[in-house]
Amino acid sequence: MNVTRLGIPVAAVMLAACQATPAADPLPSWNDGASKSAIVDFVNRVTDESNPDYRPADDRVAVFDNDGTLWAERPFYFQLAYALDRVRAMATEHPEWRNQDALRAVMEDDQAAMAGFGLPQLMEIVAATHAGMTMAEFQTAARDWLDSARHPRFDRLYRELTYQPMKELLAYLRANDFQTWIVSGGGVEFLRTIAEEAYGIPPQQVVGSSTQAEYRSDPSAPVIVKLPELGSVDDKGVKPVNINLHIGRRPILAFGNSDGDFEMLEYTTTGDGARLGLILHHDDAEREWAYDRDSHIGRLVRGLDEAEARGWILVSMARDFRTVFSAQ
Amino acid sequence: MNVTRLGIPVAAVMLAACQATPAADPLPSWNDGASKSAIVDFVNRVTDESNPDYRPADDRVAVFDNDGTLWAERPFYFQLAYALDRVRAMATEHPEWRNQDALRAVMEDDQAAMAGFGLPQLMEIVAATHAGMTMAEFQTAARDWLDSARHPRFDRLYRELTYQPMKELLAYLRANDFQTWIVSGGGVEFLRTIAEEAYGIPPQQVVGSSTQAEYRSDPSAPVIVKLPELGSVDDKGVKPVNINLHIGRRPILAFGNSDGDFEMLEYTTTGDGARLGLILHHDDAEREWAYDRDSHIGRLVRGLDEAEARGWILVSMARDFRTVFSAQ
Repeated sequence: MNVTRLGIPVAAVMLAACQATPAADPLPSWNDGASKSAIVDFVNRVTDESNPDYRPADDRVAVFDNDGTLWAERPFYFQLAYALDRVRAMATEHPEWRNQDALRAVMEDDQAAMAGFGLPQLMEIVAATHAGMTMAEFQTAARDWLDSARHPRFDRLYRELTYQPMKELLAYLRANDFQTWIVSGGGVEFLRTIAEEAYGIPPQQVVGSSTQAEYRSDPSAPVIVKLPELGSVDDKGVKPVNINLHIGRRPILAFGNSDGDFEMLEYTTTGDGARLGLILHHDDAEREWAYDRDSHIGRLVRGLDEAEARGWILVSMARDFRTVFSAQ
Repeated sequence: MNVTRLGIPVAAVMLAACQATPAADPLPSWNDGASKSAIVDFVNRVTDESNPDYRPADDRVAVFDNDGTLWAERPFYFQLAYALDRVRAMATEHPEWRNQDALRAVMEDDQAAMAGFGLPQLMEIVAATHAGMTMAEFQTAARDWLDSARHPRFDRLYRELTYQPMKELLAYLRANDFQTWIVSGGGVEFLRTIAEEAYGIPPQQVVGSSTQAEYRSDPSAPVIVKLPELGSVDDKGVKPVNINLHIGRRPILAFGNSDGDFEMLEYTTTGDGARLGLILHHDDAEREWAYDRDSHIGRLVRGLDEAEARGWILVSMARDFRTVFSAQ
């Protein structure tokens, strides 16, 4: 036998590394079924060099919406909950806000007025609460809120309402040399305060809405200040535009949950070669919420109507998610 | 002896990999001197876990200007040379261009008028030659030009006028787990047609100026179309703003060559911990060009005046570059 004290462990380690042992299930929080099979099958095909659908690692770009896809979005977007809390916290320093309808409605907790808020009102609130501070100040305020604010229904931190199956999917894709990106309508700086810790997604792979910003030069302590003017509203057709601007490659996998993600899914799944589009359908009133066509937030109409014809997978939260939220 | 047929090669390979053999010079096109020493010393410090200046790999973000830093920029920015060639090539299809002063000057090769071009004239030319086509069409046209257009002085392809010492520096930084980014005033799609091949920089790490763009939905072949309206002009104070927007981390190394890079260097070098700012000084009229304070292109005044006080390294092309261009 040519096996020695040195030889045995080295050879054994090498053998163990090379042998095809059955891997542990990388998606334990997904129930077995068509959705999980479609995901695993897609990943197997694009990573197998002998498969005609193989894609080199550089091409393995996966994009994810955030609100309603990676974490919950009800009763309203968590960033709006943050902004409303900021209005209340800052109100005494800003008596002039009583002259602005949207801000006054929040200060007076006028639920009827708030229920009718559209984009102009949201912009007024974002301009008041997000602008005029440095990026660092904004992120500190957002982080403080995320570390303490609790969701009204679940009495957990908002940040704990991330979806465990989605976190497993992100990790599974990265283990297969995918780049995982967030492409969200939420504010980019807000998202970055949690993206790395919650999802393992570094700041440079977070694309979101943004305000204009301004650099203020200083020889020892320059700052970047958020301005009230909008930069990019990263929703609908702007998502593919921002994917092009930030990533510069067409993704091969896209995962969303509302019609705001429709164009991102269309852009992703109409390129050459193997592609996968997925929509998370919120159909689980018991563990989360059930909403689609008639919802003010996360409205899903075209996605439901066209998913089948376009070959997109409708992921059912009720059927496909073994567990929903990450934290206990 | 416990050495066997299996054991010998495995053990030998492992030993060879672990032994600290003197590494080959990673920067052979840099002359020995203060600039090269400062770079190597900085990289050694931030990658040595026992050094107080150590930075984990995630923090190792390095940003580079492109025109005049990674490749040449005279007699004018190569992208402008491209745009002028496009005006000439497209002129017969666009008789209406004769009514626009800047376009007519190019069509008539009016050197006096062209010498006075400012931003409005450049915008007119970019709008005419870059807009109204899809991103894919634009990049095909740019790539065709880069594969064929020759520089008037050197009679080489423009794309061959990249700086060999800078390519070695980029590779050296990446070998030390730095992310290398381009942050350029040039157009992002134009840059991406060469960044990966020329510099090993993937599209998602290219930040540049941009036009507005529009997604045009289609169930089988959607496109993203460049619009004539400006998006971001990635110069001066906009560079730190775009670094924040795209990277989301403050770099620890910045390399530029003109006052358009001043704010990027300031932002990079005023953060906590070890930082390195570098300015390439074009002082080599023989092998390239000598220009700084009085130049229309690549003007360098504040950088020269303030580099010493701010601790930035003035890299001398004449003294520090053993070779200048990459191609023979």
